Amino acid sequence: MMAMPGKLLVFEGCEGCGKSTQIGLLHAALGRNERFQQLQHQGVVPNLITTREPGGTGLGLEVRRLLLDHSSEAPMASRAELLLYAADRAQHVEEVIKPALEAGGWVLCDRFIDSTVAYQGYGRGLELGLIDQLNQVATGGLVPDLTLWLQIEAATGLARTRQRGVADRMEQADLAFHQRVQRGFEALAEQHRDRIVAIDGLAPLEAVAAEINVVVDRYIQQWYAPSLMI
Amino acid sequence: MMAMPGKLLVFEGCEGCGKSTQIGLLHAALGRNERFQQLQHQGVVPNLITTREPGGTGLGLEVRRLLLDHSSEAPMASRAELLLYAADRAQHVEEVIKPALEAGGWVLCDRFIDSTVAYQGYGRGLELGLIDQLNQVATGGLVPDLTLWLQIEAATGLARTRQRGVADRMEQADLAFHQRVQRGFEALAEQHRDRIVAIDGLAPLEAVAAEINVVVDRYIQQWYAPSLMI
Repeated sequence: MMAMPGKLLVFEGCEGCGKSTQIGLLHAALGRNERFQQLQHQGVVPNLITTREPGGTGLGLEVRRLLLDHSSEAPMASRAELLLYAADRAQHVEEVIKPALEAGGWVLCDRFIDSTVAYQGYGRGLELGLIDQLNQVATGGLVPDLTLWLQIEAATGLARTRQRGVADRMEQADLAFHQRVQRGFEALAEQHRDRIVAIDGLAPLEAVAAEINVVVDRYIQQWYAPSLMI
Repeated sequence: MMAMPGKLLVFEGCEGCGKSTQIGLLHAALGRNERFQQLQHQGVVPNLITTREPGGTGLGLEVRRLLLDHSSEAPMASRAELLLYAADRAQHVEEVIKPALEAGGWVLCDRFIDSTVAYQGYGRGLELGLIDQLNQVATGGLVPDLTLWLQIEAATGLARTRQRGVADRMEQADLAFHQRVQRGFEALAEQHRDRIVAIDGLAPLEAVAAEINVVVDRYIQQWYAPSLMI
């Protein structure tokens, strides 16, 4: 896929790492970031959207429901699960992410290709080559410009999600599964140092948000140096 | 995938070609076929099941609904459609087809891998290499032992489905689309002469059923020669 004028920022991490909260806080912080506001006023970054996988489209919401609530007598085949995530992603890229990036916009996305590698590859033990192949089919080669990986221990994350109450199919998987997922994220961060930044997800909420703002502001300066006056 | 003791018989063809009717008639005819009954009594072929794609499992039924009834404002991305069919197939192979074949059973299936090549490849113009790749992922390499292709003209098939009343998303596509699908089936039959048998789908219902019975009985004699006493 050709380089896009917009930027795709992805939040990744285990269950309970705080992604959903932090993505909302970053969205709000960008509304107060002088450099980002300048880019918006100049029309360089015409829009900012927040979305998620699975479930970032109408079709995706229905696929998300199948993935997270599936509980018929027969267990879901792991390849069927992998292909459903890929279908959700193909629709999401085509309908939401690509049009926004083509217009120069920013997309803040809760989970993307790395989650599939961590959960289905490291977690479920599906072949990593197959996952890369399907990620390629689903995205047409699109990769995040920046991935913020909220790093916490699997046990801590699980304890947090259990406090929230009702657990979905992923959250119900056992600790060993979530520890394998965690190792998957560690391996990915090692392989993709160019785009994955680890953030300490155990720090207090405000401290995590502040660290993310510093990282994102540094990238804004790097990406938009010619357009920025400050 | 290793050769299975059972046999997978697939019915393929355009909309309105009569697959669903003929699959039921073959199921009934096998109940009167002396050779097949002998194999069943010997326990060589312990069971006979009829199934379909999409929608041969609980998960698949929900995916089928998404595929055929999808009508939200955003059109379904063609890669998302392809991946949903693959997800349905992966679950179907794992949950229904493979266990039956491993036990020595027969599976009569309404549509399988060739439909994806014909509809998504020839019909929608998606890359054939990509489709083969996804068929491989979904089936783990399982191919039909015999494919009965009910051959009719696309226009005739469409006219038949329109008589039936409410049309789903596939049936609503235009004639040019269904003609490309038809050419896809022709190309597949040419490439896979070892397993695809063309049946004249324009003949009267009883004549079509009789032709299918003759073909299937010939294969029974060929496949089970050592077990058959008649």
